[in-house]
Amino acid sequence: MKFKITPIDGGVCAIDGIYADGVNAGFKKEGFDLGFIRSDREMDVVYTFTTNKFQAAPIKYVLQKNITKTNFILANSKNANALTAEKGIKDIEEILQFLAEKIEIKNPIMSSTGVIGVRLDKEKIKAGIEKFDFFERNSDKFAKSIMTTDSFKKEIAFEVEGEFGKFKIAGVAKGAGMINPAMATMLCFIVTDADILREEMDFLLKENLEESFNAISVDGDTSTNDSVFLMSTKTAGYEKEAFKEALKKVMLRLALDIVKDGEGANKLVAFVVKGAKNKKEAKIAAKNLTNSLLVKTAIFGEDPNWGRIASTIGASGIECDEKKLKISFENVTVYDKGEIFFDEKTEKKAHEIMKKDEFKIYIDLGIGNGEFTAYGCDLSYDYVKINAEYRT
Amino acid sequence: MKFKITPIDGGVCAIDGIYADGVNAGFKKEGFDLGFIRSDREMDVVYTFTTNKFQAAPIKYVLQKNITKTNFILANSKNANALTAEKGIKDIEEILQFLAEKIEIKNPIMSSTGVIGVRLDKEKIKAGIEKFDFFERNSDKFAKSIMTTDSFKKEIAFEVEGEFGKFKIAGVAKGAGMINPAMATMLCFIVTDADILREEMDFLLKENLEESFNAISVDGDTSTNDSVFLMSTKTAGYEKEAFKEALKKVMLRLALDIVKDGEGANKLVAFVVKGAKNKKEAKIAAKNLTNSLLVKTAIFGEDPNWGRIASTIGASGIECDEKKLKISFENVTVYDKGEIFFDEKTEKKAHEIMKKDEFKIYIDLGIGNGEFTAYGCDLSYDYVKINAEYRT
Repeated sequence: MKFKITPIDGGVCAIDGIYADGVNAGFKKEGFDLGFIRSDREMDVVYTFTTNKFQAAPIKYVLQKNITKTNFILANSKNANALTAEKGIKDIEEILQFLAEKIEIKNPIMSSTGVIGVRLDKEKIKAGIEKFDFFERNSDKFAKSIMTTDSFKKEIAFEVEGEFGKFKIAGVAKGAGMINPAMATMLCFIVTDADILREEMDFLLKENLEESFNAISVDGDTSTNDSVFLMSTKTAGYEKEAFKEALKKVMLRLALDIVKDGEGANKLVAFVVKGAKNKKEAKIAAKNLTNSLLVKTAIFGEDPNWGRIASTIGASGIECDEKKLKISFENVTVYDKGEIFFDEKTEKKAHEIMKKDEFKIYIDLGIGNGEFTAYGCDLSYDYVKINAEYRT
Repeated sequence: MKFKITPIDGGVCAIDGIYADGVNAGFKKEGFDLGFIRSDREMDVVYTFTTNKFQAAPIKYVLQKNITKTNFILANSKNANALTAEKGIKDIEEILQFLAEKIEIKNPIMSSTGVIGVRLDKEKIKAGIEKFDFFERNSDKFAKSIMTTDSFKKEIAFEVEGEFGKFKIAGVAKGAGMINPAMATMLCFIVTDADILREEMDFLLKENLEESFNAISVDGDTSTNDSVFLMSTKTAGYEKEAFKEALKKVMLRLALDIVKDGEGANKLVAFVVKGAKNKKEAKIAAKNLTNSLLVKTAIFGEDPNWGRIASTIGASGIECDEKKLKISFENVTVYDKGEIFFDEKTEKKAHEIMKKDEFKIYIDLGIGNGEFTAYGCDLSYDYVKINAEYRT
């Protein structure tokens, strides 16, 4: 083995020179709702944002400024600062100017999540900033400050060691609803001290996106604020393969945490599609399965209603043939090339598999070599409850 | 006015020479589950079927036989005869052969709805056929026999009079779940005595489809069995404009009935999109709104969360600009060209509108002349309940 990846504690603050805090600025009744991650030196930063045409003001701000280096991330929950036009951007500028009076910042970035279409309450945010301890190193508080309907905080950190020396990489994310695919679909901040070129960071971030954040869906909606940031202090070692592998681990872990925490969700299901005409078609099939209400409710009911799976694939528009299709709940095949193997016995076995918190459904289209795995969850009464009552 | 359209009683049996019945063949614990519509003379028939690649056996059968004239429709609920390969088609042939021993049939058509991936119980169907009264003229019984999760039967009949003379047109449909768009998404049988050319029927059926059955969505899933049949006995008068108008009325009415009866749905919402780059983009926006879980749950919660509407449009991939967009709940505008008009007063007014059983949401993209109206419903606890427990 050329390198070793070991989980470590401390979240993003496991990395030297990284500070983080979270405070209550009065958006949430209790708990943190405003936080920061900052570095004692400038970091290279790359990012990828939502494909939603109504990108939120914080995203527009970063793109307009074309930020490539930063030492400060300010993040808030409960308000997305989206659909707020120029005023939304001006609000960010005013807030960051206020922040600059408190601490030395270079090209600061603001990131928001919450309700769309409401102006930020700048005074509350300023009052929150007053409460920051800029020398706090508490990743946990930051992780909590960006949570909205999330039921648990999402963070992970690894140390990677090899002949090249060592580096650390850590990530924190939020997201539980409005989660779909066309990009990240949540907020995610990844920090490393690896001595990696900015261009390489950018390439690897996008390469990993497809099979992590873009492979998950809670509800098929793509938010205005989805953002993934990758930052590096460049103070430690670097080796491409090791970094690639560690970054993948961080991103997939945070992505799966988001699905597991899907609003009202109880089950994490991997739809493993293979045998598609090509990867693109495999992805369409897998993603459609994660988004089908009929499939999601069947998962909630622990009902191995494979007909809904087949129907969803048939409706997805990809090349498929019922004489080539195969569907299995883990090792229990219920349909294979035109033959139905769904009887009392297989139904019972498949039902047992569906009782688990996490399981896989295999779909082989039997046509080509395209493969893709997408991750979804069930649709429960609680999803409806959470989303019907979100603003009330 | 050149013609007059009057609602009449009797459903499809309002038309001379049309017979219909429904019986219990043992698929449902009680109530009708097998029925027929037959004509005492051959009818021209045109049809349009699901875009799902796994078309059910009854659809394949009609397409393989290339049926253009028929005098008999046999329909069952509780089993879709889909994903049943050649065996599914052989089952239909055996059933129709049995039927031919009972009554004179020409190019009979079978139509099925229900669970996917289970072979038809031929013996039950044959026993049901034995119970048919082939001289019954009870459209109501037929309408009930095709219901699955439907909570009310869907039928409508009109008499159309003008200088050309008169004709009748009547339709019956079923559908409450697995309802989406890429085509019909349910079963619908329309019968007329208008003396219309088959080619003309075909053209008008497809023309009307777009703005009726293809404009509705309950859950975004497109079934394997969606079928719309239009049949004519050609024994009465005909005039193109009058027929076009009457057909549109029948199709839109049945389509809206299906949305109203959407599984667990309480509200019928029209998403009226205008100002899109073109009609295609207007349709994408409108249909995406009907399918967004976040929009559907907000409707259930009677929450005028216009940010979710904007976000869904932004995520739909169509051309849009937040400085040109306008969103109104009926006459209450909450967002207009970059300005948010969402305060306590407008929120309360919009909330009042959303309390109604039926209301409209207007979206003006402010870009071009494309318009489309799509019809959707809310997503309630009951939708989850119905679909989680469907097979159990």
